[in-house]
Amino acid sequence: MDFAFDETTMDYHARLSDFLDTHVHPAEAAYDAHPAGDWSPPPILAELQAEARARGLWNLFLPGEHGAGLTNLQYAPLAELTGRSPALAPAALNCAAPDTGNMELLAEFGTPAQRKEWLEPLLDGRIRSAFAMTEPDVASSDATNITTSIVRDGDEYVINGRKWFITGAMNPACAILIVMGKTDPSAERHRQQSQILVPRDTPGVRIVRGMRTFGYDDGTHGGHAEIIFDGVRVPAENLIGAEGDGFAISQARLGPGRIHHCMRLIGMAERAVELMCRRVLSREAFGRPLADQGVVQDWIAESRVRIEQLRLLVFKTAWLMDTVGNRGAHTEIQAIKIAAPSTVEWILDKAVQAHGAGGVSQDTPLAQLWVAARTLRLADGPDEVHRRGLARRELARWTA
Amino acid sequence: MDFAFDETTMDYHARLSDFLDTHVHPAEAAYDAHPAGDWSPPPILAELQAEARARGLWNLFLPGEHGAGLTNLQYAPLAELTGRSPALAPAALNCAAPDTGNMELLAEFGTPAQRKEWLEPLLDGRIRSAFAMTEPDVASSDATNITTSIVRDGDEYVINGRKWFITGAMNPACAILIVMGKTDPSAERHRQQSQILVPRDTPGVRIVRGMRTFGYDDGTHGGHAEIIFDGVRVPAENLIGAEGDGFAISQARLGPGRIHHCMRLIGMAERAVELMCRRVLSREAFGRPLADQGVVQDWIAESRVRIEQLRLLVFKTAWLMDTVGNRGAHTEIQAIKIAAPSTVEWILDKAVQAHGAGGVSQDTPLAQLWVAARTLRLADGPDEVHRRGLARRELARWTA
Amino acid sequence: MDFAFDETTMDYHARLSDFLDTHVHPAEAAYDAHPAGDWSPPPILAELQAEARARGLWNLFLPGEHGAGLTNLQYAPLAELTGRSPALAPAALNCAAPDTGNMELLAEFGTPAQRKEWLEPLLDGRIRSAFAMTEPDVASSDATNITTSIVRDGDEYVINGRKWFITGAMNPACAILIVMGKTDPSAERHRQQSQILVPRDTPGVRIVRGMRTFGYDDGTHGGHAEIIFDGVRVPAENLIGAEGDGFAISQARLGPGRIHHCMRLIGMAERAVELMCRRVLSREAFGRPLADQGVVQDWIAESRVRIEQLRLLVFKTAWLMDTVGNRGAHTEIQAIKIAAPSTVEWILDKAVQAHGAGGVSQDTPLAQLWVAARTLRLADGPDEVHRRGLARRELARWTA
Amino acid sequence: MDFAFDETTMDYHARLSDFLDTHVHPAEAAYDAHPAGDWSPPPILAELQAEARARGLWNLFLPGEHGAGLTNLQYAPLAELTGRSPALAPAALNCAAPDTGNMELLAEFGTPAQRKEWLEPLLDGRIRSAFAMTEPDVASSDATNITTSIVRDGDEYVINGRKWFITGAMNPACAILIVMGKTDPSAERHRQQSQILVPRDTPGVRIVRGMRTFGYDDGTHGGHAEIIFDGVRVPAENLIGAEGDGFAISQARLGPGRIHHCMRLIGMAERAVELMCRRVLSREAFGRPLADQGVVQDWIAESRVRIEQLRLLVFKTAWLMDTVGNRGAHTEIQAIKIAAPSTVEWILDKAVQAHGAGGVSQDTPLAQLWVAARTLRLADGPDEVHRRGLARRELARWTA
Repeated sequence: MDFAFDETTMDYHARLSDFLDTHVHPAEAAYDAHPAGDWSPPPILAELQAEARARGLWNLFLPGEHGAGLTNLQYAPLAELTGRSPALAPAALNCAAPDTGNMELLAEFGTPAQRKEWLEPLLDGRIRSAFAMTEPDVASSDATNITTSIVRDGDEYVINGRKWFITGAMNPACAILIVMGKTDPSAERHRQQSQILVPRDTPGVRIVRGMRTFGYDDGTHGGHAEIIFDGVRVPAENLIGAEGDGFAISQARLGPGRIHHCMRLIGMAERAVELMCRRVLSREAFGRPLADQGVVQDWIAESRVRIEQLRLLVFKTAWLMDTVGNRGAHTEIQAIKIAAPSTVEWILDKAVQAHGAGGVSQDTPLAQLWVAARTLRLADGPDEVHRRGLARRELARWTA
Repeated sequence: MDFAFDETTMDYHARLSDFLDTHVHPAEAAYDAHPAGDWSPPPILAELQAEARARGLWNLFLPGEHGAGLTNLQYAPLAELTGRSPALAPAALNCAAPDTGNMELLAEFGTPAQRKEWLEPLLDGRIRSAFAMTEPDVASSDATNITTSIVRDGDEYVINGRKWFITGAMNPACAILIVMGKTDPSAERHRQQSQILVPRDTPGVRIVRGMRTFGYDDGTHGGHAEIIFDGVRVPAENLIGAEGDGFAISQARLGPGRIHHCMRLIGMAERAVELMCRRVLSREAFGRPLADQGVVQDWIAESRVRIEQLRLLVFKTAWLMDTVGNRGAHTEIQAIKIAAPSTVEWILDKAVQAHGAGGVSQDTPLAQLWVAARTLRLADGPDEVHRRGLARRELARWTA
Repeated sequence: MDFAFDETTMDYHARLSDFLDTHVHPAEAAYDAHPAGDWSPPPILAELQAEARARGLWNLFLPGEHGAGLTNLQYAPLAELTGRSPALAPAALNCAAPDTGNMELLAEFGTPAQRKEWLEPLLDGRIRSAFAMTEPDVASSDATNITTSIVRDGDEYVINGRKWFITGAMNPACAILIVMGKTDPSAERHRQQSQILVPRDTPGVRIVRGMRTFGYDDGTHGGHAEIIFDGVRVPAENLIGAEGDGFAISQARLGPGRIHHCMRLIGMAERAVELMCRRVLSREAFGRPLADQGVVQDWIAESRVRIEQLRLLVFKTAWLMDTVGNRGAHTEIQAIKIAAPSTVEWILDKAVQAHGAGGVSQDTPLAQLWVAARTLRLADGPDEVHRRGLARRELARWTA
Repeated sequence: MDFAFDETTMDYHARLSDFLDTHVHPAEAAYDAHPAGDWSPPPILAELQAEARARGLWNLFLPGEHGAGLTNLQYAPLAELTGRSPALAPAALNCAAPDTGNMELLAEFGTPAQRKEWLEPLLDGRIRSAFAMTEPDVASSDATNITTSIVRDGDEYVINGRKWFITGAMNPACAILIVMGKTDPSAERHRQQSQILVPRDTPGVRIVRGMRTFGYDDGTHGGHAEIIFDGVRVPAENLIGAEGDGFAISQARLGPGRIHHCMRLIGMAERAVELMCRRVLSREAFGRPLADQGVVQDWIAESRVRIEQLRLLVFKTAWLMDTVGNRGAHTEIQAIKIAAPSTVEWILDKAVQAHGAGGVSQDTPLAQLWVAARTLRLADGPDEVHRRGLARRELARWTA
């Protein structure tokens, strides 16, 4: 057992820190001034992307030939760093959800033609993408509940259904949607689903509105769209894998997606602790700095204690994914999915409180970061579903 | 000891419930569709106000001759009802903050001329008002920290300073600001402050921007303004009370303001429980209604247990204000200020979680209600300051 | 609605306070020195009982002709006072569980002969009693699970079974056990059970051991016995009510028993706050009293806020029991059963922490009070069962 | 970074597991039946110790030549295993507090004569020892508060003072006390203290009583003594190190002591999860196993999630102690001292609750384990002191 980073990690970490300090953090103010209802990223993003590429900080998330070739364990502390500026840094590095998951999916399951048409421009940052799974009318945390239909009709598939919270879909650069639906409702429960590529400009794809998270529309991400698929037709070769592979593909996609979220959440927590400390050192009440208040010290200590524990579990999970695979790391992936959002939400709440009225406002990133953490207690399945799954595996150890 | 409502309360309660059911709740959808950046209330508010007046449901908050003449204890369950629709019902009844506190203040401390010019149109619902106390650069929970200056110059006072989170100030109907500042920084600590009436259209009153709360701009309330007072001149007779009375006046204003918030918070919690129950009864996951899940049942039971306790303490506080005065109810006012926001925030969090992604969105009122509760952990002084004050009084019992 | 005590209550409250201050609290030290494994109350109890009777502070718990004739609402603040010294005060006043419940039961359901033989000496304090319901092998929170058999055989009933946690059964003064068992396992689910009077010295009643709660044996209460009933024979007239009445009788017994526990728990919490305040005012660390520490102030404030809310709900529950009956107060009884133990446990934990090592030791009553509160999260059904029941009634409001 | 155990660890882990399964766990029942007020270990301990030595499982805690030569990181998972049976396993392996700390201290700071006279029989398990630091009248978490005096008088030192919670001091095998006191109250704050060896049978050493923890007297450990030192005289060569070294020596002692406690706490938590799972799988309520209840599943999942995080932080702390020394691991030692007791207390509370009345009784180890965890929130300084220290170091990062 050894808790030191390897050299590759330390090298990337130093270079990424420098890029964040010199380019990303200074650009945050411009980002924050983004007008409501504008779904395209601010122009500065393109500049940041160019700089990141020039510095060799591009597609770090992707193992193997298509990406930077880092292991999950090597990528973890880098993803954490990007979480310090989550509206900007991941996109600047072409490491933003949902594109990351979509690129992984295409790299693993796409045909050469699919990879050429969609993976290449995604890797190149020329287009963006969305992943259309969640539906308003069913508990989508269980993918078997999906009701959108994908029906073969000659050389085409016809898609009908309603999706919501489709992140990034309103970004003008979003060219492609990966849609999850059912090709065979009569098949075995985990073989009913398929995934299919739908160019966003296909007739019948109708974007209804942007869903908000608390008061935010997340316009710089391309928002969270509600979309109606009304008789949408795409060529049969747009199917990813075979009919019935949809559930298995989505399971493969989830592991890395979840750990990336957790890594970034830790960066968000570190940002919160930094802002909280700076605030309480500089703000006075009742004649002395807030930092002298025992209650505030409790928040800071407890934040540090929780972050240190959480980060190690995320690292261990990454190490397991590298050594025994996503399936072997299932328990740990579920554990961090449970632990990270609520832990980081707690820390952000304290940082907000330490800032007083300013903490809930647009003058710090804290309120919006809090919403991101809070929303992750629901995204990819609510905490309650994951706790149930984890408990069942624990109980199974004692039943044999 | 007796826990039954009196007849007046029951009569008003029935009539107000009916008004909410038949007029207010149906109007919520129009309200929720209010565009970002529009600071004026939707047109339907005027209709609701006319209806409320016609039904004798007007100015219920105000004891004595100017208002409906209800005691705090009688008003408490009515204010609770309005909390079920907090963006709309209080305003429809002319019982919305900050106008309520401003009307109380003018009724108690205003000169006949001030009452005629400002209290009358406020009571009549013809104008709105704001209360400008909080400043960005100091811990305004301690009013002695205020830095805005109010300097006598001949027959006028000249005001300079910066305020923020001035709720309602951007509503076009907002005609008058009550500004807190210092007339004599060299006086004894609680005699430095004064309050003064500043018509919003006075030269030098500059509205800088709207402060947001977790992404919301609260446009239907007239937002939360940041305001610069730059050499603003008003006649000397605009001073409320005498120079140095500002702190005492603001203390008098706080008691009723805080209890009104707490009453409404309980209504918000009841709304949350209703929505949570309806949702879990109708939504299925893993083959049965969410209502069958033990964890969900825990949320509901715990919500009910907490609400029942909290409401009784709010009622007792109102009873104490009626029987021994605001000063005699100081401990209890502080206790509910501590208990209500965090309790209701907890309940709203569970209601959000029970709704899944829809819970964080604009499709239920829950996310916005959550923000209201969260923000009240900071407004009128953060929880930590109130806990400290309450602890000191408790400790003093054992030191004699 | 009115939150003032009536004159009867205030009179009893003053007299009981005086008795506690002058007689009970000074006797606590003698009580605490009680040797392990001795199941009889210390001799001073008899003196205290004589004094209490002389002062008219006897059988206060019992409404109606047999007792002091107080309502539940009048008794509530008196029971709270006895909770400040729970090992001693209730017994000194002949108001200790399980005798109180047994006396209520005999007063309501006993035949004249049963009342003469057992109720009279209990009311007179000449004997003690126990209630034998809980069994080790089943979830006894659901009385329908009870497995002990009570079988008619001629003029007798024969009892076989195993019970545990039978409080008071090892007290040498314990003369009578009320035993819950099944007379007809084939009857409708709530008509299988009966209750029967079993003199403790009946052949076949075998006390196996004393159950401990954490490290305490509660010897001054007569401990918590594990008892085997091995072919125990009692006359048929010892049955309470008719065969099959057992479940209904036990339901009638539970309401008052639960509220008495909750009232006393509040007194325990007040004792904890007093001890905590006195400790932190007198103890220094890092150069100033612990009372100056913000974290300690938080504990004190939060304790006060929680106690005030909890007490009002207990009072309201008592008022409902007086005005609409135990059945009409079902929801509130369940609510306080859920709220009181965990709230008071939390407060006691903080009081322990404020006392350092002494807090966990025999030098303060805090550790033992904590165990009493903790155990009440399980006694009469675990919290989880009550939350489930409460949630179902709440949900039922929205299903009609 | 690498999360796999090395071979030495895996070898010891397998052998220790086998010893626990075959010898220690079967002996627990005999241990639990230990009579109150008996301060000597049950006879079976000597047999277990002989077996452990024969298996090469002896003094594992001690790095370097005197012990097994394991690193902290190698010892950590072994100490965890002993925490599954904390009343028995550590003592069986000669790895029990406070002897471990005392042996480390003598190994590092003792003179050859001191090591020969006291360290050798301790390493050999022939005698036991105690560490007398805590005093009833001062906040001993800050060692500078100690008031016991150690005064040079010719060739002797004379010791006067009162100590309490001196674990193990009443064990008949306890031959030696290490006493912390002040040799020079006028010296610089951290140079006033010294430590000195006091044979327990020295005249003037008077054991007053055993302190209890939540009713337990911990007799099998030799209890927790209150001791008066009344003019106790020992030869001057009994001083450990030089006059004034006491504070520094005690700091050196604390790091390993704290991490050992935390390692064992994790083992206690694992034991709790195992017992909880076995219980809920086998116990029915409302017609199905408790394991099917969502609330119970939440407890289990949350327990697993917390243990996994906590263990990794303990391992990392051990690794830091090995690689950068105890001083360099200061923050992490403090972090686990904060996190471990409260985390494990929470888990034990849930395991108790899942067991119903049996959980608070002597029929499972859970109640006593809970008390061990609870008491560790106070031992070696209350959580609040450690949070304050940790917060200050965190704040210092942002002040430069």
